[in-house]
Amino acid sequence: MRRLLITGAILTAMGGGAATYNGLTFAPAHASERDEIRQVLDRWVEAFRARDIPAVMSIYAPDVVAYDITPPLRFRGIDAYRKDYEDYFDAYDGPVDVELRDVAIVAGKDVAVAFGLERFKGKLKSGDVTDFWARFTSAFRKIDGKWLDVHDHDSVPIDFATGRASLDLKP
Amino acid sequence: MRRLLITGAILTAMGGGAATYNGLTFAPAHASERDEIRQVLDRWVEAFRARDIPAVMSIYAPDVVAYDITPPLRFRGIDAYRKDYEDYFDAYDGPVDVELRDVAIVAGKDVAVAFGLERFKGKLKSGDVTDFWARFTSAFRKIDGKWLDVHDHDSVPIDFATGRASLDLKP
Repeated sequence: MRRLLITGAILTAMGGGAATYNGLTFAPAHASERDEIRQVLDRWVEAFRARDIPAVMSIYAPDVVAYDITPPLRFRGIDAYRKDYEDYFDAYDGPVDVELRDVAIVAGKDVAVAFGLERFKGKLKSGDVTDFWARFTSAFRKIDGKWLDVHDHDSVPIDFATGRASLDLKP
Repeated sequence: MRRLLITGAILTAMGGGAATYNGLTFAPAHASERDEIRQVLDRWVEAFRARDIPAVMSIYAPDVVAYDITPPLRFRGIDAYRKDYEDYFDAYDGPVDVELRDVAIVAGKDVAVAFGLERFKGKLKSGDVTDFWARFTSAFRKIDGKWLDVHDHDSVPIDFATGRASLDLKP
């Protein structure tokens, strides 16, 4: 089995298919479907690190709806979301890194959800270095035998007292 | 059939179970499971407007993991999440309102995801009136014949140029 790129407390199979996530129990799950979703997440991490837009977009359904860390409220359809990724990578000079942690995968036969924390690092063209933790949730459908991401939600918490993003939080 | 509290472009059934969401097609879906999830969302909206914490919490699994609009990065388990809701309601003087819009429900037999936009309105004890749009994603498992929310993700986009939350966005 190849090494998983996802680090930290991975959802682990237990007994008859129940699974634990940081001491909490999700039961019962579909182990093979969970492995398939894990492979999709791995592919996404590799593609993101390589700044490979076609490989990144290959995990998504044409009608994906995404809620990203930055405005607008939503991106509807793969073309709008591709543009969002392109703008993101364009803002960075050199390598971009992402690390997933504490990933949970809740999988059925044809619908699945993955969620966890993600750390983004890179150097903006402005010279500023970014390094912060965010949260992600992704929903998948199995369409014609292939899992496709139909919905992404990525965010950083905000402090209402100051109106500012909380970019210094750590797991 | 009682009136749905959810407003706006609801996911609608089409042909053999395919469904559209703002002109995009999700196919094929489980219609009865989708209706069950819609009823859970309705119960949540009613409970939220009534500031009824036990009714709000009745939709969640004991091991729910929530990513909320405000810090920390995550709430693990129903007790932590209940405290988050209590703190939220405590900050408001009088009624709180929530409206869901453009809700999509992707349902399988035992795993489902709902996502959409949500508008929060209320008067803080400080006297400030809040009125903003956020995004929500919720994941559900059918456990012992009952759908339970195992994961919530709620957020507002942030503007990286200013480090501020974007609270003035509209659908």
